[in-house]
Amino acid sequence: MNPIDIIIKKRDGNVLSKEEIEFFIDRFYKKEIRDYQMSAWLMASFIRGLSKEEVKHFISAILRTGKILEWDFQVIDKHSTGGVGDKLSLIVVPLLASLGFKVAKLSGRGLGHTGGTIDKLEAIPGFKTNISLKKFKKIVERIGCSIISQTEELVPVEKDIYSLRDVTGTVDSIPLIASSILSKKIAGGAKTIIFDVKVGSGAFMKDIKDAKELTSWLIEIGNSFGKEVKAVISDMEQPLGFAVGNLLEVIEAIETLKGKGPRDLEELAIEVVGTLTSKDLAGESLKNGDAFKKFTEMVDAQGGNITELTPLASVYKFSIQESGYIERLDAYLIGEAVRVLGAGRYKKEDTIDPNVGIVLKKKIGDFVETGEIILEIYYNSENKLKDSIELIKKAISLNKNEVKRRPLIYSVYS
Amino acid sequence: MNPIDIIIKKRDGNVLSKEEIEFFIDRFYKKEIRDYQMSAWLMASFIRGLSKEEVKHFISAILRTGKILEWDFQVIDKHSTGGVGDKLSLIVVPLLASLGFKVAKLSGRGLGHTGGTIDKLEAIPGFKTNISLKKFKKIVERIGCSIISQTEELVPVEKDIYSLRDVTGTVDSIPLIASSILSKKIAGGAKTIIFDVKVGSGAFMKDIKDAKELTSWLIEIGNSFGKEVKAVISDMEQPLGFAVGNLLEVIEAIETLKGKGPRDLEELAIEVVGTLTSKDLAGESLKNGDAFKKFTEMVDAQGGNITELTPLASVYKFSIQESGYIERLDAYLIGEAVRVLGAGRYKKEDTIDPNVGIVLKKKIGDFVETGEIILEIYYNSENKLKDSIELIKKAISLNKNEVKRRPLIYSVYS
Repeated sequence: MNPIDIIIKKRDGNVLSKEEIEFFIDRFYKKEIRDYQMSAWLMASFIRGLSKEEVKHFISAILRTGKILEWDFQVIDKHSTGGVGDKLSLIVVPLLASLGFKVAKLSGRGLGHTGGTIDKLEAIPGFKTNISLKKFKKIVERIGCSIISQTEELVPVEKDIYSLRDVTGTVDSIPLIASSILSKKIAGGAKTIIFDVKVGSGAFMKDIKDAKELTSWLIEIGNSFGKEVKAVISDMEQPLGFAVGNLLEVIEAIETLKGKGPRDLEELAIEVVGTLTSKDLAGESLKNGDAFKKFTEMVDAQGGNITELTPLASVYKFSIQESGYIERLDAYLIGEAVRVLGAGRYKKEDTIDPNVGIVLKKKIGDFVETGEIILEIYYNSENKLKDSIELIKKAISLNKNEVKRRPLIYSVYS
Repeated sequence: MNPIDIIIKKRDGNVLSKEEIEFFIDRFYKKEIRDYQMSAWLMASFIRGLSKEEVKHFISAILRTGKILEWDFQVIDKHSTGGVGDKLSLIVVPLLASLGFKVAKLSGRGLGHTGGTIDKLEAIPGFKTNISLKKFKKIVERIGCSIISQTEELVPVEKDIYSLRDVTGTVDSIPLIASSILSKKIAGGAKTIIFDVKVGSGAFMKDIKDAKELTSWLIEIGNSFGKEVKAVISDMEQPLGFAVGNLLEVIEAIETLKGKGPRDLEELAIEVVGTLTSKDLAGESLKNGDAFKKFTEMVDAQGGNITELTPLASVYKFSIQESGYIERLDAYLIGEAVRVLGAGRYKKEDTIDPNVGIVLKKKIGDFVETGEIILEIYYNSENKLKDSIELIKKAISLNKNEVKRRPLIYSVYS
């Protein structure tokens, strides 16, 4: 077998065999196939597509380069395809644990305009996300849940492939996204995986059709690896909840865990948990403090301290000289407006400021009086504030006529 | 502008602007755009195609990274798209010079199964192909012709792009081939370029339609850069002439320059020269010794010595126990059979043996008696001979019924 022949076969739109895909990934992992050959193959795969069978072989090949985490009991993992203000994992993970499930979540950092669960958790003073797999397993066993950062031990080659996709314009392909997500989730060893597939301006999937397509790939291929797969397709046209920015989102997640969160956030949390158990029990756990208690146990176990969570930032109150119903609150642009404040990265090495972000006071469908505050900006640099305001202005449109509220949940696969 | 956006634009089948293409090539040359990004772009361009306008911008961008050779008089360049036994440049260059033209040819080395003019010339003891551009210009001015190896001074980035295409399955795309050929030829500064576009098993273009398409690109885009472009499309289903292998081809070229060469080789040489001047004059120059005299002047000027050109190799006479008309004499496989003997390279660093090769005794349409010699193999290793014979057996088929001779010339653009 020859790497160039494999690239050419995909380039010409042919289906690759298990052996060819394994050869290609294995040699890439051993650095015998070079980055420029992988990127040519990724581009050919992006344009020509990969079949579900090919994706299964791709995932198997990735898994062969690393190891699969083993558990003595059945665990659940939860994954969001990424959004703005998406602090759902901080709520769902302890909520499930409070209901008796074991939840072991491997998370990533923020990507582009979207936030990452690890960055959010690290906004909690002392919270450790890079703990050993051994300790991770112990915490899950003892407390019922833990969230740590994606470790290279499990699927080292996936990270290299992802990094290449990021800089070669080969990110938003359903087969490649499914391969990336599933290889990481399968390596985590969970028996059950719940996907929150986001759709809208702030998501990687811009329309429902693509979101449904990706979901069907995740379910079918996940099942073929012996996983129980649940999924919810939810709206990401506007941010989820009110808070966007690492510490602000932690605070909002805690409010939600105490049963005092924004309506949409609570509803989605209950819907996601509802794919595995009764929604009533889930709602109760938020009301009676069980979910919040589980969260504090997890924070304690991972060295964090939530007694003092106040954003160290100045606050700018944003309003416009116009009245009307909010018609657009573009999640992508709000995400960028928060990134520009310092909450996200432009280069891998960038450090982030946990204190900055945005708190919405209104959402799509709400009426705004002239000069009424639409959102607050938490900032630590006047220049960044200026850039952020420019983006926010582009993100918002009003309409004189009444505007319907956005739907939150499109589909549930339970 | 952002490299990833440019890759994505081409990935999605859109047309790139002059500014985008220039930005991409310029940053690649400065190593700000990396190999893996260029290869993703090349794959996207391969699959989605590049328009003639885009190719013009691509060539301009490549030319901006280097320099264009300037001449005080009008010069001619000749280029073959590559074949097996294709020693035509050794004949056409001095032949044109003997008719009063100035011919300045920048040549490459063998590529894959095809031979390279530079490797052939270096089979002549003492012949120097890596002389300075200054000396090159002087020789052309004084004698009327010179052939030197492609220098990186002219289009440094082209070589880097070509090397990437070679290992990423992006070689046989008409827009990319046209860009590569024309950027080198335009940098050579010739006013007139004659292309010999090969078609058949031993050529990069496998069918006439593709060969005509490539030729139309070379002519139209060459013209847009102010070049006079001539072209011949000729057969490469079987080797050109009888000899394949570096020194063997030099010897056959010299015979042809003396008016005693194989019919097909002489015919094609006259046809190619005929795109610029009278075919009768060309034939006369081969007969009366003028062309050969010019060749000896060029060899002298470049330090070569042709007094003793005898291949230092053993000879194996190849025959088969069957009779019939030769129906197939596959140029690709014959090329590979000669490469395996040591006449070509597998890695860039490989050294080649100028002495080895094949001399055909028969061509397509000829009748072969049982056991009659079909070709002779010049070899210096028994093992390589064995491998070569295996390939040759696959290259030849006989037919009991009479087989038509191959056409030699398909189209002439003069």
